[in-house]
Amino acid sequence: MRRTIEWKENKVIMIDQRKLPHNLEIITCKNHHEVADAIKKMAIRGAPAIGAAAAYGMALAAININSDNMSEFLQELEKASNELSLTRPTAVNLFWAIKEIWSIIEREKYSVSEIRANILLKAEQIAQQDIQTNYMIGNNGVELFDDGDNILTHCNAGSLATVFYGTALGVIRSVFKKKVNIKVFADETRPVLQGARLTAWELKSEKIPITLICDSVAGFLMFEKKINKVIVGADRIASNGDVANKIGTYSLSVLAKEHKIPFYVAAPISTIDFSIKRGNEIPIEERDKEEVTNIMGQSIAPIGIDVYNPAFDVTPNKNVSAIITEKGIIKPPFLTNLKKVNKNN
Amino acid sequence: MRRTIEWKENKVIMIDQRKLPHNLEIITCKNHHEVADAIKKMAIRGAPAIGAAAAYGMALAAININSDNMSEFLQELEKASNELSLTRPTAVNLFWAIKEIWSIIEREKYSVSEIRANILLKAEQIAQQDIQTNYMIGNNGVELFDDGDNILTHCNAGSLATVFYGTALGVIRSVFKKKVNIKVFADETRPVLQGARLTAWELKSEKIPITLICDSVAGFLMFEKKINKVIVGADRIASNGDVANKIGTYSLSVLAKEHKIPFYVAAPISTIDFSIKRGNEIPIEERDKEEVTNIMGQSIAPIGIDVYNPAFDVTPNKNVSAIITEKGIIKPPFLTNLKKVNKNN
Repeated sequence: MRRTIEWKENKVIMIDQRKLPHNLEIITCKNHHEVADAIKKMAIRGAPAIGAAAAYGMALAAININSDNMSEFLQELEKASNELSLTRPTAVNLFWAIKEIWSIIEREKYSVSEIRANILLKAEQIAQQDIQTNYMIGNNGVELFDDGDNILTHCNAGSLATVFYGTALGVIRSVFKKKVNIKVFADETRPVLQGARLTAWELKSEKIPITLICDSVAGFLMFEKKINKVIVGADRIASNGDVANKIGTYSLSVLAKEHKIPFYVAAPISTIDFSIKRGNEIPIEERDKEEVTNIMGQSIAPIGIDVYNPAFDVTPNKNVSAIITEKGIIKPPFLTNLKKVNKNN
Repeated sequence: MRRTIEWKENKVIMIDQRKLPHNLEIITCKNHHEVADAIKKMAIRGAPAIGAAAAYGMALAAININSDNMSEFLQELEKASNELSLTRPTAVNLFWAIKEIWSIIEREKYSVSEIRANILLKAEQIAQQDIQTNYMIGNNGVELFDDGDNILTHCNAGSLATVFYGTALGVIRSVFKKKVNIKVFADETRPVLQGARLTAWELKSEKIPITLICDSVAGFLMFEKKINKVIVGADRIASNGDVANKIGTYSLSVLAKEHKIPFYVAAPISTIDFSIKRGNEIPIEERDKEEVTNIMGQSIAPIGIDVYNPAFDVTPNKNVSAIITEKGIIKPPFLTNLKKVNKNN
């Protein structure tokens, strides 16, 4: 695996995830507009990866603003910030990263040139920190798994959803190193097929045993006792532990509960939005109907058909067995236990 | 809509369902090998439609056997019967229809020519009876529905899954005529996309309000109270009311139970297999991995990836609210109430 996104010679380079699994192509973004476009069109996706992309996008904007006048500079940076914020609504890491960037801009203390340098430094730190965080999530998660586990995952909470290593797949990577006879089932994850295209590609590359299934197969596998753990990532977690994640996650949580199978969420603390109380306050992105009606450019449904295409759903905290973070495993009651993590932050 | 399958000038003509929704093409089968091939490759699919196809396939075999010697004739017919039986394992209507054909062959009573004629007559009756049965299922189902219902269906239990009118979609057609403000949600039904291709096409053609969703969306729609009834077809029902149907049906039944939503199965009595006690005795067909890894000829997953692709699953009777048949609505306890229907048969 290589890094999903990095800074190189005053440009941001990233893997174009729309081309996987058959082509590993790299996109080079020269300005923040191109980064915003890459996020919007899902060349880069996954909550932590989007966070890093937004931070690097801010750094690109900063070096491209052609003025050393502080007010002008900050005005232009504000515009870039807004443009990046409007790319996707659900993953909180996007807003978190932009806020992190703004937090180090102290106009009274530094010159425009210094602020430019500081923004780039902060963006790089956010990206590096993400890698570190994922290793810690991976290590922390290991104790929840056993030899011979059959683990289901949904969408791609992998290296490709982060800067490197992954959250849910980071845990799977760490588990695979320490336990024997681990098997993974990957939901293909319609409509964008992140499971079939990205998770399958990541795990197969590393020779982690992986079986691809259609999304509707998971419940029957649980019924047949062929899956005994579920682990997914998260796009935003409310203060009470409600989890917004890829559409289909909620159904899996209900099915896991029905079959008495643990349902784990792996995510960095930056995914927790302490400003909101419950999952129903999380904005759910509805995407183009063409994602459903066209697959790889081929039409699969009658022309003009109505489609409902939410990109995410919300899993209530009661269906979540534990949230695996870089600060340790958080168990219910989440309202209390997430608050503790926030205080220690 | 036109009939899915019919007899015409000593040939069997059927809609090639692989070409829908964009092309309405007709296949002409001149012999039972071509019918078997059409079933195997899913040019025709859906339990009752497969039953009719098998019956017509037997009729084609009968008229094509080039011998008036009774033993020779029956030996050849037996071969045809075996070939048709081996096409698909789960839908019981296939075996039922072939058994029905054999039941009218009385070698002591009739000549080979008479048997030929009787087989064709019986095949035509099976097809006609299916249409009649579906209208009755449709009428019987209406009372379970109300004005303003938001109904979820899975796969295609429509006109295309039968000779005409459909089972689950037959009920929806009848409900649409008698109730107002009905809305239908259709699961796309990966891997073969019968929902996106066939159900969407059928309902849109008749201006029944239809919204297409990915399979993983249904649970979240129930959570949001945007679906209040579920109706599906069946490929085989055990004596105790366990239902084998398209993969994903089981998950929907669990989700419906979680959200206290009625879960209805619409199927002719011929779908009930009284020879087996429980759903776990129903053979579940596992189909080619290419159905999952390739969509409309496009590869969507890494080459060589392992795939698990069961075509059906089994929904336990406890998750089924009622089975709608041509003889009326059967409610739990199914073991007792299905037995009554069998006795009245």
